[in-house]
Amino acid sequence: MPRISEKGLAMPASPIRKLVPYAEEAKRKGRKVYHLNIGQPDIPTPKEALDAVKNCDIKVVEYSHSAGIESYRRGLAKYYQNVGIDITHNDMIITAGGSEAITIAFLTCLNPGDEVIIPEPFYANYNGFAVQAGVVVKPIVSSIENDFALPPVEEFEKLITPKTKGIVICNPNNPTGYLYSKEELEQLATIVKKHDLYLFSDEVYREFCYDGNSHFSAMMLEGLENNVILMDSVSKRYSMCGVRIGALVTRNKEVIATAMKFAQARLSPPSFGQIAAEGALNTPAEYFKEVYDEYIKRRDFMVEALNKMEGVYCPKPKGAFYTVVKLPIDDSDKFAQWLLEHFEHNNQTVMLAPATGFYSTPGLGKNEVRIAYVLNVDDLKNAIECLDIALKQYPGRTL
Amino acid sequence: MPRISEKGLAMPASPIRKLVPYAEEAKRKGRKVYHLNIGQPDIPTPKEALDAVKNCDIKVVEYSHSAGIESYRRGLAKYYQNVGIDITHNDMIITAGGSEAITIAFLTCLNPGDEVIIPEPFYANYNGFAVQAGVVVKPIVSSIENDFALPPVEEFEKLITPKTKGIVICNPNNPTGYLYSKEELEQLATIVKKHDLYLFSDEVYREFCYDGNSHFSAMMLEGLENNVILMDSVSKRYSMCGVRIGALVTRNKEVIATAMKFAQARLSPPSFGQIAAEGALNTPAEYFKEVYDEYIKRRDFMVEALNKMEGVYCPKPKGAFYTVVKLPIDDSDKFAQWLLEHFEHNNQTVMLAPATGFYSTPGLGKNEVRIAYVLNVDDLKNAIECLDIALKQYPGRTL
Repeated sequence: MPRISEKGLAMPASPIRKLVPYAEEAKRKGRKVYHLNIGQPDIPTPKEALDAVKNCDIKVVEYSHSAGIESYRRGLAKYYQNVGIDITHNDMIITAGGSEAITIAFLTCLNPGDEVIIPEPFYANYNGFAVQAGVVVKPIVSSIENDFALPPVEEFEKLITPKTKGIVICNPNNPTGYLYSKEELEQLATIVKKHDLYLFSDEVYREFCYDGNSHFSAMMLEGLENNVILMDSVSKRYSMCGVRIGALVTRNKEVIATAMKFAQARLSPPSFGQIAAEGALNTPAEYFKEVYDEYIKRRDFMVEALNKMEGVYCPKPKGAFYTVVKLPIDDSDKFAQWLLEHFEHNNQTVMLAPATGFYSTPGLGKNEVRIAYVLNVDDLKNAIECLDIALKQYPGRTL
Repeated sequence: MPRISEKGLAMPASPIRKLVPYAEEAKRKGRKVYHLNIGQPDIPTPKEALDAVKNCDIKVVEYSHSAGIESYRRGLAKYYQNVGIDITHNDMIITAGGSEAITIAFLTCLNPGDEVIIPEPFYANYNGFAVQAGVVVKPIVSSIENDFALPPVEEFEKLITPKTKGIVICNPNNPTGYLYSKEELEQLATIVKKHDLYLFSDEVYREFCYDGNSHFSAMMLEGLENNVILMDSVSKRYSMCGVRIGALVTRNKEVIATAMKFAQARLSPPSFGQIAAEGALNTPAEYFKEVYDEYIKRRDFMVEALNKMEGVYCPKPKGAFYTVVKLPIDDSDKFAQWLLEHFEHNNQTVMLAPATGFYSTPGLGKNEVRIAYVLNVDDLKNAIECLDIALKQYPGRTL
């Protein structure tokens, strides 16, 4: 039998994958499982997006342009201009989700053995994309003690080696919900400029900024036109994760020209998804207002309820729809499994994402979990009640 | 400015890319350009596929399972069983087109520096996928002199080194239209077995087999359950290249488990595309009959017309909708450019794909072009008439 590749062996499994059989078993037993573990929102997709697909009158579903349908790219350029990112439809390549934008960006910019610095906890799939490109992730700890703010510039400097080729940020952040300020990004810009690095900025949660904070994009940093690569997606913006439409955006012409060669090899991004995304550009402002209000309600309820529990600390997220919470537990992986395997309250339980999966440094995140507040407030109430009771019963509690 | 990666520099541009500006310029001058250069069929997508998308009643376009929607995978397994490939819905991962199936297959099975043997001329994008995975392509010449039949086993043996890890075939073949027989595949199987290689079989043109020949899939080879990886797509089968739905299929459980880690990192294949593909499973037999009759008409007209021209040789393709044709010319790249830049007949011209782009060995394909017979017979007639006159006028003709 021929051997599996080294990259195949090195690819990390999804951090919650080992929990899935326990969740399935709990459901088989008739138990209601509240999924606080995934970033799949329950918010309806805008009617404008769904109607665009329903009403499109195509006879042959053809390949689109490898960079994406031109009318969609022109529309998307307008969207960016409206949020203060001054680019044209030639500065982007439409991709199969944000995932492909990251893959193509890494392949275009990084050599095997190159290092990228990423503040941890970070989106676990960055590990997988790094393995695919043969890139080494150098984590820099951002701590729950100061609500996961950007680590100081000096800490970044300590990690820079001749192999450092880039920094990856996610803003607003998955999994922490932290929103980097303009000042933090400008600090980051000094290191990027000094060492001539790429700054890969994952901004798929751009629309989810709370408490009057506005989003400052890495694309707005001056003098970094050739360094910044924006990786974006319509998945969260319009609650249509399944369309698989994202974008790689940069003013660096050489990166665009090179990324195009990767884009041409895979022919084109999905046509129906692009039609939905182009339709979604007409989503009225009220849609976003409603979504915003809904998430604020969920977040406020959740943060308050969590912080009332003994030994629990939940920073108040300023963006996205996640938070990393400190719990009085010995081991978040064990706790998450125990919740599914041994716990029930009124025949209900909760599925959480152990934060260990979001840290690259071994041992970190053992007393933290990521919670996605993608359920309505009634469900959240039940879920949080479960969690409260579970924390009192869990044999590995540390209080 | 930070540097582009070595893979980015090594990625080949699309072979016809340099011709595109000339085609655009010709069109700007008001010239009609017949595209014999691309594999974008004009055949309508089945109503069943389009209706499935139009009528689907989803409120939230969610991520699907990373391996693909289960009901679609079960339906697709039935399709495979009907064509004699006995597998279940657990032996496959639905991908973003055949392209992603190839990418994931290479990443799962091959290490950087590993070698794969591919009969040339071959689908040019294999080069790009090989660069992405750091894999070295070792071409083995199949010749127009014997209509691009599989090279003899001894020729394969000569290329085998300790780094050889796989063989890639495309059957029916793009660009040659050659259909490998059961006997040829069994010959290939002996080498695969002897050296314990992977056999990557690209069968996206399975439905396009002519003259009473039936398709013998690599998945039907006995004793190679752990070696054969089928890379498939619905793009050509249902003329819906834009939905970006393919599949990686294998009975090798370890390959499936490892490929799943790559599939999970990119979250899911496109939802609308999967809905279209599931709908397309209900396409009636008459659809395929009509498509078959249409392609036979086109092929027969084209092969006959080409072989009537002085100094031209066109093998009769038994599959797919391409053929590689020998022309009395000095340089197919120059000829293709000349057709767009300097030639017109009744204000019409033809765009061809120089065969040089399908050969890995430098210098091969200079007097060959690939022709895709994806136009209706009336257009084909005009195109072939143009080509006939052009061959008489071309300054680089060798007759």
